[in-house]
Amino acid sequence: MNTFKANTFKKSIIHMGEMASGAKLTVPVYSFEVEPTDQGASFENKVPNVYIQANMHGAEVQGNAVIFQLLELLKNCDIQSNITLVPYANPVACNHKNGEYTLGRFDPITGVNWNRMYHFDEMVIAPFAERNIDASDAEIQAKFQELLLAQIEQKLDHNIWGLTTGQRIAYQLQRMAHQADLVLDLHTGPIASKHLYCPEYAKASASYFDIPHTLLIPNDFGGAMDESTFCPWWSLQEAYQKLGRNFVMGKGIFAKESFTVELGSQEQIDLAVAHQDALSILSYLQYKGVIAQKNDNSTPLQNGQSNGYFPQEMTRYACYLDDYKALYSPMGGMVDYLAEFGKPLPGEPLARILRMDNYGDGDPLHNVCLDRTVIPILHFASASVNQGTELYKVFCNYFEL
Amino acid sequence: MNTFKANTFKKSIIHMGEMASGAKLTVPVYSFEVEPTDQGASFENKVPNVYIQANMHGAEVQGNAVIFQLLELLKNCDIQSNITLVPYANPVACNHKNGEYTLGRFDPITGVNWNRMYHFDEMVIAPFAERNIDASDAEIQAKFQELLLAQIEQKLDHNIWGLTTGQRIAYQLQRMAHQADLVLDLHTGPIASKHLYCPEYAKASASYFDIPHTLLIPNDFGGAMDESTFCPWWSLQEAYQKLGRNFVMGKGIFAKESFTVELGSQEQIDLAVAHQDALSILSYLQYKGVIAQKNDNSTPLQNGQSNGYFPQEMTRYACYLDDYKALYSPMGGMVDYLAEFGKPLPGEPLARILRMDNYGDGDPLHNVCLDRTVIPILHFASASVNQGTELYKVFCNYFEL
Amino acid sequence: MNTFKANTFKKSIIHMGEMASGAKLTVPVYSFEVEPTDQGASFENKVPNVYIQANMHGAEVQGNAVIFQLLELLKNCDIQSNITLVPYANPVACNHKNGEYTLGRFDPITGVNWNRMYHFDEMVIAPFAERNIDASDAEIQAKFQELLLAQIEQKLDHNIWGLTTGQRIAYQLQRMAHQADLVLDLHTGPIASKHLYCPEYAKASASYFDIPHTLLIPNDFGGAMDESTFCPWWSLQEAYQKLGRNFVMGKGIFAKESFTVELGSQEQIDLAVAHQDALSILSYLQYKGVIAQKNDNSTPLQNGQSNGYFPQEMTRYACYLDDYKALYSPMGGMVDYLAEFGKPLPGEPLARILRMDNYGDGDPLHNVCLDRTVIPILHFASASVNQGTELYKVFCNYFEL
Amino acid sequence: MNTFKANTFKKSIIHMGEMASGAKLTVPVYSFEVEPTDQGASFENKVPNVYIQANMHGAEVQGNAVIFQLLELLKNCDIQSNITLVPYANPVACNHKNGEYTLGRFDPITGVNWNRMYHFDEMVIAPFAERNIDASDAEIQAKFQELLLAQIEQKLDHNIWGLTTGQRIAYQLQRMAHQADLVLDLHTGPIASKHLYCPEYAKASASYFDIPHTLLIPNDFGGAMDESTFCPWWSLQEAYQKLGRNFVMGKGIFAKESFTVELGSQEQIDLAVAHQDALSILSYLQYKGVIAQKNDNSTPLQNGQSNGYFPQEMTRYACYLDDYKALYSPMGGMVDYLAEFGKPLPGEPLARILRMDNYGDGDPLHNVCLDRTVIPILHFASASVNQGTELYKVFCNYFEL
Repeated sequence: MNTFKANTFKKSIIHMGEMASGAKLTVPVYSFEVEPTDQGASFENKVPNVYIQANMHGAEVQGNAVIFQLLELLKNCDIQSNITLVPYANPVACNHKNGEYTLGRFDPITGVNWNRMYHFDEMVIAPFAERNIDASDAEIQAKFQELLLAQIEQKLDHNIWGLTTGQRIAYQLQRMAHQADLVLDLHTGPIASKHLYCPEYAKASASYFDIPHTLLIPNDFGGAMDESTFCPWWSLQEAYQKLGRNFVMGKGIFAKESFTVELGSQEQIDLAVAHQDALSILSYLQYKGVIAQKNDNSTPLQNGQSNGYFPQEMTRYACYLDDYKALYSPMGGMVDYLAEFGKPLPGEPLARILRMDNYGDGDPLHNVCLDRTVIPILHFASASVNQGTELYKVFCNYFEL
Repeated sequence: MNTFKANTFKKSIIHMGEMASGAKLTVPVYSFEVEPTDQGASFENKVPNVYIQANMHGAEVQGNAVIFQLLELLKNCDIQSNITLVPYANPVACNHKNGEYTLGRFDPITGVNWNRMYHFDEMVIAPFAERNIDASDAEIQAKFQELLLAQIEQKLDHNIWGLTTGQRIAYQLQRMAHQADLVLDLHTGPIASKHLYCPEYAKASASYFDIPHTLLIPNDFGGAMDESTFCPWWSLQEAYQKLGRNFVMGKGIFAKESFTVELGSQEQIDLAVAHQDALSILSYLQYKGVIAQKNDNSTPLQNGQSNGYFPQEMTRYACYLDDYKALYSPMGGMVDYLAEFGKPLPGEPLARILRMDNYGDGDPLHNVCLDRTVIPILHFASASVNQGTELYKVFCNYFEL
Repeated sequence: MNTFKANTFKKSIIHMGEMASGAKLTVPVYSFEVEPTDQGASFENKVPNVYIQANMHGAEVQGNAVIFQLLELLKNCDIQSNITLVPYANPVACNHKNGEYTLGRFDPITGVNWNRMYHFDEMVIAPFAERNIDASDAEIQAKFQELLLAQIEQKLDHNIWGLTTGQRIAYQLQRMAHQADLVLDLHTGPIASKHLYCPEYAKASASYFDIPHTLLIPNDFGGAMDESTFCPWWSLQEAYQKLGRNFVMGKGIFAKESFTVELGSQEQIDLAVAHQDALSILSYLQYKGVIAQKNDNSTPLQNGQSNGYFPQEMTRYACYLDDYKALYSPMGGMVDYLAEFGKPLPGEPLARILRMDNYGDGDPLHNVCLDRTVIPILHFASASVNQGTELYKVFCNYFEL
Repeated sequence: MNTFKANTFKKSIIHMGEMASGAKLTVPVYSFEVEPTDQGASFENKVPNVYIQANMHGAEVQGNAVIFQLLELLKNCDIQSNITLVPYANPVACNHKNGEYTLGRFDPITGVNWNRMYHFDEMVIAPFAERNIDASDAEIQAKFQELLLAQIEQKLDHNIWGLTTGQRIAYQLQRMAHQADLVLDLHTGPIASKHLYCPEYAKASASYFDIPHTLLIPNDFGGAMDESTFCPWWSLQEAYQKLGRNFVMGKGIFAKESFTVELGSQEQIDLAVAHQDALSILSYLQYKGVIAQKNDNSTPLQNGQSNGYFPQEMTRYACYLDDYKALYSPMGGMVDYLAEFGKPLPGEPLARILRMDNYGDGDPLHNVCLDRTVIPILHFASASVNQGTELYKVFCNYFEL
């Protein structure tokens, strides 16, 4: 009979920054840790460790509620590996109001996107593979992780020129993420449907999330958390391949998966929706063995327990990152967004732009159309746009997953 | 038989401001004008002139769409008096993005609320009444309007110290509004139900709008457009009363009504909803005689014509301005807004505040409750709040209209 | 022989607010306290207690450096009464960057000026005077201070609707200020000369500061710290006068003085200048008896000690608040500020506005002139202005103090 | 005898963007054009065409004043080639106030630096060189310029997805710049000394500007105007070199020079300083033959004429871009900037950071030092910094030019 008591987590605090008044900004870290002996002996059986963070962009707060619900649910799960959860990952951003809204996608001083400051130095990959061409899998895994962590430590502690505000935050988060195998970075769009950024090799995993749209992304590092944790391994696998030693990305020591999970729209907290999103993540974690499935249906389930977490049935669409297109406004004006998210759009206008200054002697309404069928995924957060504001992002050349 | 051809309007442009690059900000003005002889000879029968503006606050854009729909509908109405419509009333505000949103409730340089800069000088009222104690109604009406307009002209043109950005805008708008009898200032809340600011004496008119919540406001000038146009007349009526000459506010030469019409939530354009709001305004205008009702049902209605505009049936609640309460957040945190707008709230929490930093060693969820039954009217636009951010505004001591 | 050892202060921490992440914003408070018996027995001889705060507006940081230098100097002064010093008075404001600068004059959510949220309820004054018409001076002093503090307590602790972010800060500061007799609120202008806001009755004190420009302000409450602490007493003195009991404002129990000390330009910390400003404040405090003057010149002064603090000789100009005029830009453009601060300006242009869009077919340079002689005190912080931006503030009808 | 009448320029207007209200943002363009026959027949003698723009970053306004002074001076110069001058290059940025300051270094919606959106597609270089390996110099010059312009046209006019706000501005400016040989992009730092970004091969030209600090930059494209105009040619020269055809960069058809001219501090207009800066630019233009030097000293100079423009004598320091270091604040706090610009700093602290929260129980002053001798070039615009804010930029490993 499978019995377990409620799990306990460890809570710690990270110092993420200081403001002008000296106010310290801290981040709480919640960790479920299993005994090392619980983990499988070989890499084939090893249960992956997990890192989940939320709210790197200031206005994208729903991930905090999802972490709340995950913590509530994980208490009663049969946890098989280490899970670290970090809400409020970027307190500088999430505390930065301007007007009524949170100005949170970029550093308000520099304009740099907070999610473009993680570290990856491609230059170290090939030399590492050459040095360790004959090392065992376990050695490669251990030494490469050590290298990644040493690089972060070097950045954090041995730089006479200092770090930018965003680097200090990003590197501290990345130090935790590099110690995990599966990384979930919880974001939202402006006004958006749920969608998932998934590395191409991890496509099979996408179907375990209750998310109908998946973006398949290549091995290109642009500074984001997900890329910063999978690109090093993907590049290492490619480096070994060039040297004639073949690994399969996503398997064995390369069983690394990182996702940016887009939970919907920013500037919203909804605990009921967050519960659904937490179930979706648990479905993925159970698939990965992080949570053991109950295998004995004869045991009556107790309150708060579940027989297991499984993905919902839904049509899941995907497209490649190159086919994820932004549509910029051809004019300034005020926008009536018409296109429904997630539905292939059959040539109808995506939006109407109101231009009252043209009323009476011009076109007061301008339809924004495309010449192809796309799936609208998100649109701009405000009804007022400048010429050139990003109106929509859409899937082109999409396919069923 | 009642026939009419489509009405035509005059379009003009007002210069509202200049930016640093010299860029001029202009505002289009649409006017339907009737022959003076169309108007009634006595004040009892006089059809009131109308002034409607939108978007004084930058993010409150839906009023522009309502003016679009009004213009479309008015073309086919039987118009009995002058109607002036001004969308984009404040182009400085509506063009001011900060981050993705429009920073539009106040001047971004000074912080002054754009809708607190209109003019009213209480000091001129009593002397005017004394000087004109025996004047005819028509003389009082003409001279007092002349005085109001002269004061605005004085402000606009004869001030060596200049005007603030907001005053220049407000005074130019007010100059138009003072030439009308009925003034509608189209606003929205942050995230809000529809509601109406209505002077106490005009309560009967509130039921002609399709708006379920009405705030009854007293004769206190705080700088807003509605107040700046009805307070002078209300104060004049009171001044005459003190001198022993009694008029009824809202009748005869005092048939002045000004409303702030709150159309719902900011940062949204919805042309379908705007059509509904335009019908609601036409219902009020028809009630006031500005639009003649079709009186011959035997005539088949042509396309675009309507037999008339009437208010929808609905329960309309009202409260006095003193009973319109703001509730400020007792703590910083992230808010799951729970209360449904417009429904008397029977003691349930209005919101839950998430505080993940307290998870594990404190209260991660805080319920925000009130000790009385209220009607929630609007809530803050963002899920993130500081301690002291306005969470909700609610009707207390409400009653049916 | 007058000997003393270095004074010690007490340091405490006030909780001023919470951000969305739960981050607490605190303010350090430094207090020098003397034994109650040190103070004079009668009100004529009573040494006034002092309250000094800085940085209520976020960008006005130099006051923090002045408090640093005051603390350094006060260690070696012969202190005769309680002195409380509060740097970083408003951590919400001083931590709020937007772009490179601090957006600090108003609450970034509401636009309300942080220095317009203090409390004063005129309604309580006349009833208090009537109730205490025959009370002794000491009773009046004690009971009225008690009333002021009770009102603040009521606001802070017994309000089911909560407080705005700014009220919570202002009231906590005001609670400390009401316990002092002399209040100095350290501010700066945008780009400014040093100037002083001084209640009319305290004019004699203005000459003890090393500040060449003084604004004499009347008994009108607009929400600022200085007004919130002297208006209640001034109004009380006037209320007693109406009842036939005459006190002299600024003497006896009405020896209350509050100043807004404008230290120069915002966005600057200069510790050397701060030392000069600290000496200026000590000159005022010594004049008021808060610091005892060394009376024995035979004693050789030790390092860090001073024989006393005296004002510098300088021409001091003053004008009444009504004569402190703002000049608003007649056009958008880019401004070459020409007028030198503090010098009566003999008809020369204050500024030239560059309008390159007019080059070649209009006037690329516009001179901004006045028709009278004024003293320029401050100008706008940026070279780019909208039509209507406040360019300069100037003294008109000034006179020597 | 060398006689000439005042030159005339052509003025045109470019449409750069539209705001939400429909307001159009335009940019004035001033062009001096010479008869084609005035230009030299061979590339050795060809007088280069010139493009000068200012104010791409909103707060960096001084370049507009420099263009004003250049226009005034060029009227009386003997102009030998085409000169195009564009003030207010980015009206979206220069009109964007937030608080009192201009939020101008990045798009307020996206955070993208306005000077990182120019176009260069490295992929077209090698194929072009291969296709035109045997073309004449004149053919290469003409065809490559045509290619660059065609790419910009393609971006501007043939993109169904539209352009971002910044791209539309950048590409329209770049279209003009590609038609010139010498490009000057006038910028400023936050609070800064004058300095010059100069491509390594154009080092000799740096001494013709009255600018004491020069940054030598390599052939790396990062999106800036200067790079977008010289990198294509530099890359083309390298591509030919790989194919065995050697050109010298900076000579003949590769006589292309682009500079970012940093004029000092942002948020300032000073017409007198602008006149000095205009003389410095004319010195460079005369060196390049764009302005003919007066060769007849016997002619008495008339008012406004000059015998020629020559650089001032000064010590000019330079360093390579890799040695231009940013120093980030090790803590939050308020900064007393101490280091004098432009002087090699002999180990003294660059700044002191005030932390009043540490007063009494910690270090209230923290010295920011470096372990090497550097030349401070600029520092942050505000006294308040977060941990990680860029405090200073400095030259390391500098040398005399």
